[in-house]
Parts: sequence; C-alpha cells; structure tokens
Amino acid sequence: MTQNEILTVGSLAFDSIRTPAGRVDTALGGSGNYFSLCASFYSKIQLIGIVGGDFPKEHLSALQKRGVNTDGVQIIESGKTFHWAGEYDQNLNEAKTLTTHLNVFEHFDPKLNENQKKCSYLFLANIHPSLQLSVLKQVERPKLIACDTMNFWITGNLEELKKTLKEVDLLSINEGEAYLLSNKKSLLEAAESILKQGPKALIVKRGEYGAVLFTNKFVFMAPAFLVKSVIDPTGAGDSFAGALMGYLSKSGIDSGMEKTNPALWESTLRRAVLAGCAMASFAVEDFSINRLLTLTKPELKERESQILDMTQVK
Amino acid sequence: MTQNEILTVGSLAFDSIRTPAGRVDTALGGSGNYFSLCASFYSKIQLIGIVGGDFPKEHLSALQKRGVNTDGVQIIESGKTFHWAGEYDQNLNEAKTLTTHLNVFEHFDPKLNENQKKCSYLFLANIHPSLQLSVLKQVERPKLIACDTMNFWITGNLEELKKTLKEVDLLSINEGEAYLLSNKKSLLEAAESILKQGPKALIVKRGEYGAVLFTNKFVFMAPAFLVKSVIDPTGAGDSFAGALMGYLSKSGIDSGMEKTNPALWESTLRRAVLAGCAMASFAVEDFSINRLLTLTKPELKERESQILDMTQVK
Repeated sequence: MTQNEILTVGSLAFDSIRTPAGRVDTALGGSGNYFSLCASFYSKIQLIGIVGGDFPKEHLSALQKRGVNTDGVQIIESGKTFHWAGEYDQNLNEAKTLTTHLNVFEHFDPKLNENQKKCSYLFLANIHPSLQLSVLKQVERPKLIACDTMNFWITGNLEELKKTLKEVDLLSINEGEAYLLSNKKSLLEAAESILKQGPKALIVKRGEYGAVLFTNKFVFMAPAFLVKSVIDPTGAGDSFAGALMGYLSKSGIDSGMEKTNPALWESTLRRAVLAGCAMASFAVEDFSINRLLTLTKPELKERESQILDMTQVK
Repeated sequence: MTQNEILTVGSLAFDSIRTPAGRVDTALGGSGNYFSLCASFYSKIQLIGIVGGDFPKEHLSALQKRGVNTDGVQIIESGKTFHWAGEYDQNLNEAKTLTTHLNVFEHFDPKLNENQKKCSYLFLANIHPSLQLSVLKQVERPKLIACDTMNFWITGNLEELKKTLKEVDLLSINEGEAYLLSNKKSLLEAAESILKQGPKALIVKRGEYGAVLFTNKFVFMAPAFLVKSVIDPTGAGDSFAGALMGYLSKSGIDSGMEKTNPALWESTLRRAVLAGCAMASFAVEDFSINRLLTLTKPELKERESQILDMTQVK
C-alpha cells in the first residue's frame, strides 16, 4: 500500500429505507461503501468486503475511479448481497431496523494480503467484533487504527468488543451506544469510562446535534451543519468516519503523536472532526449514496469553511 | 438608569420541581429571578416583577447586594407569589408542567418609572405578550431589546406575540418553540421564517445540545458545556439569557451596529452566546437558583474559557 493509504473492512449492502421524505428499495449502501466514497475525497483506500452476484459491478468500477481499490471485495456469484431494511420516523437520529438479511456477509472472513497487512491507516467499520479482532491480528503496526460498532454487538458480544477496544486508537460511536457501552448517565462520565477501555480518542456522534471528541487531555465539540431538509440519515455516521479518517491519513498523523507532538495531534483531530461533520451533512441530503456520488471537492471545501465560520469566535 | 444598565420584566416565583435527581418544593424561581441573578455577573439590573407577602424579603436583599435594583418589584402583602410545579423525566430537555398558580401574577401590570423608560437594554422575559407590548410602549429607544416567549403564548396569543416580535432586536426561544412559531420542519427554515417576523437575531436554545444564533448574515452554533450530572434544568434558558444580555450590555453594543459596525456586532453576539452557554451550565448543576447563589466570577471565567477551548480549532 502507498503511504497514508487507508485500509477499511466493512459492508457493501443493499438498503431499503423509508423516511418521512420518501422511500428507496434495494439502494446502494453499507458501511464500507459510505466510508470509502467519503474517504476517497482525501486519500487512497483499499476496501475489504463481500458481495453477492447481484451487486452491480459498475458500482465497484465507480469506486475504483475514485481511487478505491476494490481487489479485496470478494464476489460470491452464487450468493446474495447483504440487505438491510429500516425506517425513520420524525426523529431522524435513530433508525428502526425492519429486516436484516446477512446473506453472503454471514460467511465473511476478511483475509488481508501482504500489502494490506502493512496499511498505515485502518478503519474497522461496524462488523462483528470477532471479525474486527481477526483483522487486528493480521495487520502489522498501522499509524492509526479506528473502529465503529453498534448496539447489537455491545449487547451481544461485549467481551470480544472489549478486546477490540483495547487495540484501537480511536472509537467512533453514536450517543446511545456510548451510554450503552459505559452504563453511565452523562456523556462526560460515559466518555471517561470508555477512554479507560483502550481508545486514546472517542468520538460520539449525536446526529443532528453534531459530534463530540473526547481524549484524556481535551474535549472538542462540533455541531452538525444545518441542512434545509434531511432526506435520509442512513450512512451519515460512516460518511463522518470516512472524512475523518481521510483527513487524518492525509495529514500523516500517527497515534504516537499523542505523546511526541500533542499540539499537532490535538489540532489535527479537531479539524478532522469538522471534516467529518461537513461530509455527514452531504450524506443526509439525498437517499442512499446519491449525494455523495455527485459531490465535488469545491462543494466540500465550501462546506468545511462554512462549518468553521459557524463555530469560531471572531 | 446608569449607562448600560439592563431593565428586565419577568417573574419571581416559587417552583416545585421533580427531576430524576430528586425534588424541591416551593424553591425560589421565576424567569426574572434567574435572569437578574445571572446578568448581575456582568451589569447592573433593574428588575420589574410582582410577588406576594409570602416571598422572602431576604431574597430581594440578596438580589440587591448583587447590583439588582428591586424597587420595581411590587409586593402584594395580601397575595400569594406565582407558583409553578413541574417535572422532568430522563429527557431533561423538556419540562412537564403539573400546576401553574399565577396568583398575584394574574394582575401583573408593569409600570415603568421615568428612569426605567430610558433603559439602554431591555429584556422581556417569558410573560404574556400583551404585557411585553405594554412595556415596549413605555420605553424610549433602548440600545437593544430582547425577549423570550413560550409555547403557551405562541399557541394562544399569536397575534399579540407577532406585534412584540416586530419591535424586538433579539428573540431567544427553545427549539420546540422555534418549530411551533414557524410551522417549519427544519431549524434553518424555521429561523429564516422567524427572522422575517422582526428580530435581527434569533437564538434557539437546544438544552443539552447548546444554542444556535441566527441572523440574516451569519449563523453561530455553540454547544452546551458538558456537566457530569444535570440536577435541575429549570431556569437554564433564563440563565442563558441573563448572561447573554449581561455580556451584550457590558460590551455597549447597540442594534444599529448591525449596519454601522457589522464586524463588531457579529463578534459581540458570538461571544455573548458562549457566555450564555457557560452560565446555563451552572444553573443546571443544582436545584432552583442554588448553584447561581454560590457561583463566583473566577468560576464563571474558567468555564467561559473551557467552552472556548472545547469549540475552537487550533
């Protein structure tokens, strides 16, 4: 892998989604998909995942055109792609899962090639903690490892998840998950508890209210950009993580900087969170990955500067 | 009134409050009370309100010691003080009103003396819009007029409220009220609609998620300071407004600056919002006004600088 390239392991999926704004069926989704698309605005990506014969090859080509290496996407021609169906009521911050068909994802067993094992940046999207652990065992020492998880694993696979948390530098989860994982009642206490479980940095995503970055040294709070109309919040968290990791990898940050260059570590993390907020705000503007496919670098730059303007004193 | 003094018209009340952290009965409350206490950290205040014979005179003395002139607080010895009872469930952002006994407040008819009519800064706390209008008719031209309101008046007295809104420079309301007042579904659209109704600036308070300042020229988003444990959210919005107006009056800002010195207008408003966030975070740390009574200027300064640190890129 080239220097600063990101390796990510996550899902490629079909999503059927109903929101107050409308619905889509069998639209392109998946954490690895959203993540890669968004990170590709900053860095080169290698994506590891699995799809069935029903997954459009053209979409893999589209990812490749954006600098996402999809050689690690296994295609099971005889199988069906992971399919998630969910809906949102007026509270767009929380999805209700209607059905989950793991399909080929059920037998997903990510194997890294020699090149991928040397990755500089690793993002473990929201997959089974045992798969996250398996990837962690395969990589040599990346500059920075981040991961996501969800309620389902916190409730059902806590022991394995805890092993993952010990190995990652940065954990990115949503607010409800932070409370569930910590069993605390205030966000500050939740963060303190989670930071003791391993990560050097914790990012708590709060939907339309933005994100908070916690470390043992500082806290940084970023608002969500206000969009006129949220069409579909699906993938906003993965889009956030994609831009965040993209920004971090582009900067060349490594986790050792927390000690060797704390000022740079801190300022880079702060700006990466704002990059995440900017990207997430585009993801929600349309169903599926549609807005991300039309997004341009100038649009992204403009929104990043709008978010700076909305948050900084003068 | 001395230059930069604030005139406020609002309630002094007894509150009976139940929150997940416990309960208090007949504790000191009221919008004018919270507001004055908090604004007094920055400026001198004249408070106009009404209480019954049951209201502790010592508390009026305590306010006076902090630079709050209470000559405008009418004492109806034969009457009872306004009494509000409410409770909060785990969602501390919204109070459920159990009972409201207006008592002497029912016949409240604020009369300004010649001195008060010349006030530089005016804050109309959450009272009947017709009373707000009556005060507006009495004042000459303050440098800046701000007001609060609530669902009850938006639903029941919209026409009078709209007349008030035409006359004020700054409106400070919570998120639910912004949606109700505008009949819009996104905050951005709500703000655009409300700004067309009169105010030059709108502040939307979002409880534990902070506050957003909207003008026709810029948006500023400030997070709520994260406290370890929220004991009682009552009065947080009035405390926010107190510090906000205190900061604005201390700065000497006037509403004309929006045009004559837009850079100063903008930077002052931004910093005033952060001052509001700092103050509100103290208000919720204990029941009633308890924490505000023990709060010191150094504590307040420290929190203001913590909020800056939590929000600014480096």
